Amino acid sequence: MAALARITHKAHLPFPASTTTTTPSKPRAARICMSLQENGPSLAVVGVTGAVGQEFLSVLSDRDFPYRSIKMLASKRSAGKHMTFQDRDYVVEELKVDSFEGVDIALFSAGGSISKEFGPIAVEKGTIVVDNSSAFRMVEGVPLVIPEVNPEAMEGVRLGTGKGALIANPNCSTIICLMAATPLHRSAKVIRMVVSTYQAASGAGAAAMEELELQTREVLEGKPPTCKIFGQQYAFNLFSHNAPVLSNGYNEEEMKLVKETRKIWNDSNVKVTATCIRVPVMRAHAESVNLQFENPLDEETAKDILKNAPGVVVIDDRAANHFPTPLEVSNKDDVAVGRIRRDVSQDGNYGLDIFVCGDQIRKGAALNAVQIAELLL
Amino acid sequence: MAALARITHKAHLPFPASTTTTTPSKPRAARICMSLQENGPSLAVVGVTGAVGQEFLSVLSDRDFPYRSIKMLASKRSAGKHMTFQDRDYVVEELKVDSFEGVDIALFSAGGSISKEFGPIAVEKGTIVVDNSSAFRMVEGVPLVIPEVNPEAMEGVRLGTGKGALIANPNCSTIICLMAATPLHRSAKVIRMVVSTYQAASGAGAAAMEELELQTREVLEGKPPTCKIFGQQYAFNLFSHNAPVLSNGYNEEEMKLVKETRKIWNDSNVKVTATCIRVPVMRAHAESVNLQFENPLDEETAKDILKNAPGVVVIDDRAANHFPTPLEVSNKDDVAVGRIRRDVSQDGNYGLDIFVCGDQIRKGAALNAVQIAELLL
Repeated sequence: MAALARITHKAHLPFPASTTTTTPSKPRAARICMSLQENGPSLAVVGVTGAVGQEFLSVLSDRDFPYRSIKMLASKRSAGKHMTFQDRDYVVEELKVDSFEGVDIALFSAGGSISKEFGPIAVEKGTIVVDNSSAFRMVEGVPLVIPEVNPEAMEGVRLGTGKGALIANPNCSTIICLMAATPLHRSAKVIRMVVSTYQAASGAGAAAMEELELQTREVLEGKPPTCKIFGQQYAFNLFSHNAPVLSNGYNEEEMKLVKETRKIWNDSNVKVTATCIRVPVMRAHAESVNLQFENPLDEETAKDILKNAPGVVVIDDRAANHFPTPLEVSNKDDVAVGRIRRDVSQDGNYGLDIFVCGDQIRKGAALNAVQIAELLL
Repeated sequence: MAALARITHKAHLPFPASTTTTTPSKPRAARICMSLQENGPSLAVVGVTGAVGQEFLSVLSDRDFPYRSIKMLASKRSAGKHMTFQDRDYVVEELKVDSFEGVDIALFSAGGSISKEFGPIAVEKGTIVVDNSSAFRMVEGVPLVIPEVNPEAMEGVRLGTGKGALIANPNCSTIICLMAATPLHRSAKVIRMVVSTYQAASGAGAAAMEELELQTREVLEGKPPTCKIFGQQYAFNLFSHNAPVLSNGYNEEEMKLVKETRKIWNDSNVKVTATCIRVPVMRAHAESVNLQFENPLDEETAKDILKNAPGVVVIDDRAANHFPTPLEVSNKDDVAVGRIRRDVSQDGNYGLDIFVCGDQIRKGAALNAVQIAELLL
């Protein structure tokens, strides 16, 4: 991580959180006692040196997730590195076929091909895998879960049965969008959704965040920008999401929003279109979401519904022009929603426009995965 | 303008063009001869020291706009400054009631209140005013013109009649959106349009661009950012457009897209919704546009239509993941369109998603205004 990543406690710095807690008010010692306990499950974190892997640890710690042991797993390249977690020293181990012996829950975030190879091996050993990659999301029978939205999809997956299982963590854009759209959907049934995203560098990993920082310095110094990750200038620019473009003209990121929404809502009829764009922001995504409903839903009712939705915070001060921003939700658990207004392009109260922001690494990845694991306890 | 603004010839620098030409291949002397000529109209540029004012000069020069004289007008604060235009020295004059004596065409970009005060005074003197502010856009009888879209709206406005007139330049977001949407509208009739914008700093003026640059330096140095223009951090962040929010929850920028589209298309039934967002980009806007048509329009036909549309360039290479970016259109005249695809959320060929980028200062303001003036010649 670049130099600036170390000073993340300053609100104006848009760089990733370290593994230290973001809630320093809780006494640290008390948390360690609660977390490390004989009757907790044994954990493994796969891809522990990555941006999401590091955030897994941060979230586990913040939420006092109980565990009797934790394995730090990564590629051969990172094996042997030392790291501190809750004041204890750990050595990163190389991910291998026998890594999951005795592991109850494994949190995976090491890319799709690692998940495809090692996910089934872990399940075979009786481990419940919470996978942050896209490898198994659309596989029938694999629950795709946002705990606030569809916890019922995990019914039947339990610890202590000796039976392993795969549970998929949805794509970050899908999670952030559906955290706000679902409560409205439950009330008035969304029939169509038009999404435009403003996605942060973090979605492409820690190296992408470093490159954005480096490029920005270079451009400000009048130098040509280093373009290793994306192949083009990112600083003071934006571009269509770097995911491969499919034959229908949508990129994979956009089709995740289309397909995952259907699976999570268990509604094959919901119509979704999306345009996914990367913007020069560090770690929180924003999304402009246009909703069409089957039943009427007025603006005030929608605001009330969102104010009472778990994991959602409404920031919607029209007079002060204060609405959600990526910076404001960075390192935060809640997804923020604002610009809640009746869509003037639709008749009556059958449409709403909203603007949503959420921390990509936290609720968009690590937090959601740990919340899934909490449902197993 | 900040230090970096001077080195705009480097492609990776996202800062505004100076008044020097961006097409150095044309011999400079030839252009001066063509531009400054006895039988050309007399011009005035109001707000000449601003970002758009400077770009007026650049565009007039690039396009060999003929003139027999040109007055540089600005506020008292800027009066007396010297500036060079086409190798001649000019002194900036204070804008006054008698400034328009003998002026045939005045290009205004000094804000709405200046336009409201001095626009009618100029018209009274027989001047044709091309106004870049929002002051007169929605006034009945005032043509609101994108030359490639609705030149017919200017019928009856002519030079040499001694009769003054007001012509309004549309809002930058509207111009950039409609440059791409109109050719498709002409073919299949747009009935509804959902727009999400990614707007550059330049829309808020040169000072906003400087602040974005300054803030970015500050954040990279670990300092708190200077927040004078927008009141919040812009560097590595984005936020809902700073225009005032109206009672319907839309901000003024969004309602411009809604209302100006209806006026320009002369279609009071077209339904438009918009969410306008400022992103940390210097001088070109991007827009994600979802279109619903009355008649079917397939993807390939749409591409062909756009390829043949005046002032539009198609950048749509799916294999190379190469689509329009703000940086690529900066200092360019053409609006770029890409991500042209059938909307999977609509049945048949009744919907398309597109992504549009255009230089906010150029086609979004100065170029469009000069093109309007060219229609008068």
